[in-house]
Amino acid sequence: MRECSCALIIVGNEILSGKVQDSNSYFAARRLREVGATLARIVVIPDELDAIAEEVRHCARRFDAVVTSGGVGPTHDDLTIEGVARAFDRKIVNNPELERVIRSHFSERHLAAGLKMAQVPEGAVLNLGGDVDFPTVQVENVYMLPGIPELFEAKMSALMPRFASDPYFLRAIYTQAGEGTIAEYLNSCLERFPQLLLGSYPKIRHPEYRVKVTLESKDQAYLDEAFRHLLEILPQGVVIKTE
Amino acid sequence: MRECSCALIIVGNEILSGKVQDSNSYFAARRLREVGATLARIVVIPDELDAIAEEVRHCARRFDAVVTSGGVGPTHDDLTIEGVARAFDRKIVNNPELERVIRSHFSERHLAAGLKMAQVPEGAVLNLGGDVDFPTVQVENVYMLPGIPELFEAKMSALMPRFASDPYFLRAIYTQAGEGTIAEYLNSCLERFPQLLLGSYPKIRHPEYRVKVTLESKDQAYLDEAFRHLLEILPQGVVIKTE
Repeated sequence: MRECSCALIIVGNEILSGKVQDSNSYFAARRLREVGATLARIVVIPDELDAIAEEVRHCARRFDAVVTSGGVGPTHDDLTIEGVARAFDRKIVNNPELERVIRSHFSERHLAAGLKMAQVPEGAVLNLGGDVDFPTVQVENVYMLPGIPELFEAKMSALMPRFASDPYFLRAIYTQAGEGTIAEYLNSCLERFPQLLLGSYPKIRHPEYRVKVTLESKDQAYLDEAFRHLLEILPQGVVIKTE
Repeated sequence: MRECSCALIIVGNEILSGKVQDSNSYFAARRLREVGATLARIVVIPDELDAIAEEVRHCARRFDAVVTSGGVGPTHDDLTIEGVARAFDRKIVNNPELERVIRSHFSERHLAAGLKMAQVPEGAVLNLGGDVDFPTVQVENVYMLPGIPELFEAKMSALMPRFASDPYFLRAIYTQAGEGTIAEYLNSCLERFPQLLLGSYPKIRHPEYRVKVTLESKDQAYLDEAFRHLLEILPQGVVIKTE
């Protein structure tokens, strides 16, 4: 069994202050699920050194991989690199390879600001690949991505193969009964299939159904058995459709 | 000065697995900002008791108010109430007032499942008000809201007066120069106005501008002075418009 647990840390005052709706976490959640990885935590924190260092330290110990979003540009509020360095007690050093890339990307006029981006934690690894021309900086199991959605998505896509795990299998049951009616059958199903990932998602005023029940497992046979069992025990007429 | 720092804890496997895009955090972020409160942390965690208890304990100590979203319904994956009880080492007890509300809302057939929602941490406070007919359960400084957006938004709106703080004032400068060009002027502005909340948000391929710079403060005079100063030091032709 190949497994990869992930955490996503969004560094962004603009999200916390409601100026911008974060789309990176939804993108990352879907892509990670597609490749079988388990996203176990998403955290949005302010552009503050201590907050970044503390959260990175917390997540790096607990999860196989940590992805950060935002705070890697050339301005005063770009503190992610320094926060990650602090999390691992590493110095910030100039990376000659990054400097070379930056010198070829920035015009002379903007070079001073751009060169800040060649300053990375000591021992950082540079990842290229995919549709990406600026490498993704990695320290230990932490990958530092930009917050701009177009760049975040390109870099996340390029990294995806290294998060790939055994796939999740998914079935769904749509019911016309509410959660109050079906709760006891879900509980009974879970008692028999304790490893099942069972979700119950009620909708208000949906024209077709009242609850979407999702069943998931990395074991297809186990999933199929649980799915058949739940369909058997649910009362007549409750199920509208299955997927 | 009246201040309220807030954290938002989203309990939701459906968000982490990419099945659903969270909209509650964007709603909460905007509303809290409007009333001057400071949203300092958003966390999405799985439907797991230990994860809930740990995050609630962490946030309740550090922030004035904590809002949770999700996990308060009648099904097996609704673990928020128990998680909050564990965070504060409280027993779960039946709340007679909640029981009365539930008995008047649920039909006899669904009552058994519904009554689970009358089980709350000992000493919980019930909050009514606004456009809400089911009270919001509160323990210490933690408010437990449902995850369904229509309900979350109604309950959040009803609670808003208690988060109200001194307002934030906001100005914005749109530039046609990139971050590389303006970084040094932003830094210089911050040196002179260290209390300023200064944000720099680059856009890729936006038809009108390349960077939106936001300036914020709870002190209007300080903000106006910083805004004028930054406009003065930015090179000719860089600024497209201001707000």
